[in-house]
Amino acid sequence: MDDPNRSPNFSEIIHDLRALSSVNHALTYLAGDNNRTTAEQIELTSIPAPPFGESDKAIWMAQRFRALGLTNVHTDDEGNVIGSLQGIADTKKVVVSAHLDTVFSEETKIEPVIRDEIVYAPGISDDGRGLAVLLTLIRALTASGIKPQRTLLFVATVGEEGLGDLRGVKALFKKRTDIGGFISVEPGSPDRITATAVGSHRYSITFTGPGGHSFGSFGIPSAIHALGRAVAKISELQVPADPVTTFTVGTVSGGTSINSIAQHAEMGLDMRSVSQEALLILEKKALDCIRQAVEEENARWSKGTLIKAMIRLVGDRPAGTQKNDTTVVQTAIAVIRDFDLEPKLLPMSTDSNVAIHLGIPALTLGGGGECGGMHTLEEFYNPKNAYVGAQTVLLTTLAFSGVAEASPSILP
Amino acid sequence: MDDPNRSPNFSEIIHDLRALSSVNHALTYLAGDNNRTTAEQIELTSIPAPPFGESDKAIWMAQRFRALGLTNVHTDDEGNVIGSLQGIADTKKVVVSAHLDTVFSEETKIEPVIRDEIVYAPGISDDGRGLAVLLTLIRALTASGIKPQRTLLFVATVGEEGLGDLRGVKALFKKRTDIGGFISVEPGSPDRITATAVGSHRYSITFTGPGGHSFGSFGIPSAIHALGRAVAKISELQVPADPVTTFTVGTVSGGTSINSIAQHAEMGLDMRSVSQEALLILEKKALDCIRQAVEEENARWSKGTLIKAMIRLVGDRPAGTQKNDTTVVQTAIAVIRDFDLEPKLLPMSTDSNVAIHLGIPALTLGGGGECGGMHTLEEFYNPKNAYVGAQTVLLTTLAFSGVAEASPSILP
Repeated sequence: MDDPNRSPNFSEIIHDLRALSSVNHALTYLAGDNNRTTAEQIELTSIPAPPFGESDKAIWMAQRFRALGLTNVHTDDEGNVIGSLQGIADTKKVVVSAHLDTVFSEETKIEPVIRDEIVYAPGISDDGRGLAVLLTLIRALTASGIKPQRTLLFVATVGEEGLGDLRGVKALFKKRTDIGGFISVEPGSPDRITATAVGSHRYSITFTGPGGHSFGSFGIPSAIHALGRAVAKISELQVPADPVTTFTVGTVSGGTSINSIAQHAEMGLDMRSVSQEALLILEKKALDCIRQAVEEENARWSKGTLIKAMIRLVGDRPAGTQKNDTTVVQTAIAVIRDFDLEPKLLPMSTDSNVAIHLGIPALTLGGGGECGGMHTLEEFYNPKNAYVGAQTVLLTTLAFSGVAEASPSILP
Repeated sequence: MDDPNRSPNFSEIIHDLRALSSVNHALTYLAGDNNRTTAEQIELTSIPAPPFGESDKAIWMAQRFRALGLTNVHTDDEGNVIGSLQGIADTKKVVVSAHLDTVFSEETKIEPVIRDEIVYAPGISDDGRGLAVLLTLIRALTASGIKPQRTLLFVATVGEEGLGDLRGVKALFKKRTDIGGFISVEPGSPDRITATAVGSHRYSITFTGPGGHSFGSFGIPSAIHALGRAVAKISELQVPADPVTTFTVGTVSGGTSINSIAQHAEMGLDMRSVSQEALLILEKKALDCIRQAVEEENARWSKGTLIKAMIRLVGDRPAGTQKNDTTVVQTAIAVIRDFDLEPKLLPMSTDSNVAIHLGIPALTLGGGGECGGMHTLEEFYNPKNAYVGAQTVLLTTLAFSGVAEASPSILP
């Protein structure tokens, strides 16, 4: 299936799929459901879901899943809400997901405001849009009587953002081996595809030493000097341009006063790559830089190993690449082109990272509408023609799952 | 006078000086004045004198100087309070000084508490003790009818602490060329002598650059990486052990989030030496490190000179050494030994720095009593036998000034 010459077939598959009267009905349904979906999106966004505090929104989603007729609706140990739309085949299932958590704290006031038909609210797009798309998809599938070939699992995940570190989706794949394809819906226009997972390893590194007066105690090593040596070494690291691999020391702090030898210094190190292998090579080099820096600062003053570094992993998102000629990418491209849009491939870090890293076909798709101000209090969402996003997600989902007695699953 | 074999002469001079009946009367007076001096010390300490806010305490000191009979009492443009005790010779004068300012802010509550005969109050020792010693000295000199050979200038200076950067005494020596000797009274036991001025240059260095997302903008230089390179270079600098010369990067901060290429980073650099020459050599090397670090970080990414460093001098205290065999040091040693104490020579950074740097004989002496917790809210002062400090300062002062028709000035 990796032969690029076969890509026209994907166009045909998608074209045929779209021509099915049940699918056509579902697509029309989505357009008509746009306003109700916007109202639901506003309602669910109003429920705070800070990192590690998603349970209220999870309860709300579980209620909606049940009300819309999903079966086996439950919340797993990590906090993910899962509901099934039963398929006819006893093969691996297809996940359609969005994330419950926002970047906003418990205290953030969420009072959606509509001005000139644009909705303003923290989280309205990221990932209010994704969650709302799940609900309108379920309604459209049910209303049009579509029976999927493979069972669809609708999943609202926890912990996608920041320190959540993909904990929801990591737990999902740790527990389940019955997932054969994965789609994550994130804010963005329908022409957007993420098939390459930017992995990241993040470290907090703390240097400690005895400290002392800058004049009276001169001759002992400094936590800040050790940090400086580490940063200098890291700044000279070489990384490949392909696979894209990056690093930065994003934060530093240390010392208490200008005239004291620092007792404490701290830095935040971010490393990313679209290749897990390249990420691990970079990581090894960077951690070596830190160890060498500590050794050199201790050696400089010959007073023993007074400086120590504590290296703490604070972020771990696995990397992975799916080439452009793979089935999933070609499918998504065909869907988007079928809507006369030009696909945009964007490497990102999303829930799909975990699936891609595990070799499970996965995509992150744009949920539609105009989204902006993400991760800020000025976040907004314009629902105009947003249903197109739901339509492209629906078609891609059905290409993944197949339609009973009508269209095959593109998954292996 | 630099011949160490001549040091016995200083003992004789001091012994003879102490034997004068007027001087003996003054020394006895100081012992009897201990309680009154403690009360005065508590009263003046209660007047806040934060850096750059010494005027209330200055007004109080000027009133006391006048009340005690000093002539030509005035406050100079910088805020120093100056009063004269006229000598008989038209030669250079001798300054006896203490500093008005404390390290405590305007808002710090100063409510002296006496417990078990120990006085607790921020600033009670540093430099409440020094100011109180000036007042008891004036009373003792007046009461015993001592006429100094050289005119004594009693000076309460501003800006000795921290960011004050010795502004009071710098202004004093900038304006006046009639000072031939300088004594500063600081908290500490009477056996303490500071004759070597630890000079310091302090810099705040700010690195700036364009900044950006750690993945999306990778390939541009980082303000933190430039800072790290500078710190690494500085940490390898070599300095002489004699004259004692030291350096440290005491503080660093920078960046906004772990996953951003830093736009801003800042460090505080402290350099000290007892030799002004060694200090300037070190300074040149350190500033070169910063310039090279910026160049290297810009060169690493070949995007032009995107990173810039702003180098700002935030502290400048001149250095200077007076060898142990010099007249002033031998005089102080002789005085302290005459009280059966063993002199302790401590290089420090005090108001005397400026005089020593200018080649004017100068000493910083301990005002007596038990002092502790300096620069903390728990600062305390025990007045028991504190008059011994006033006595050693008086004898050293009279050795500097000489006593009319009775004892010569040891100054050139």
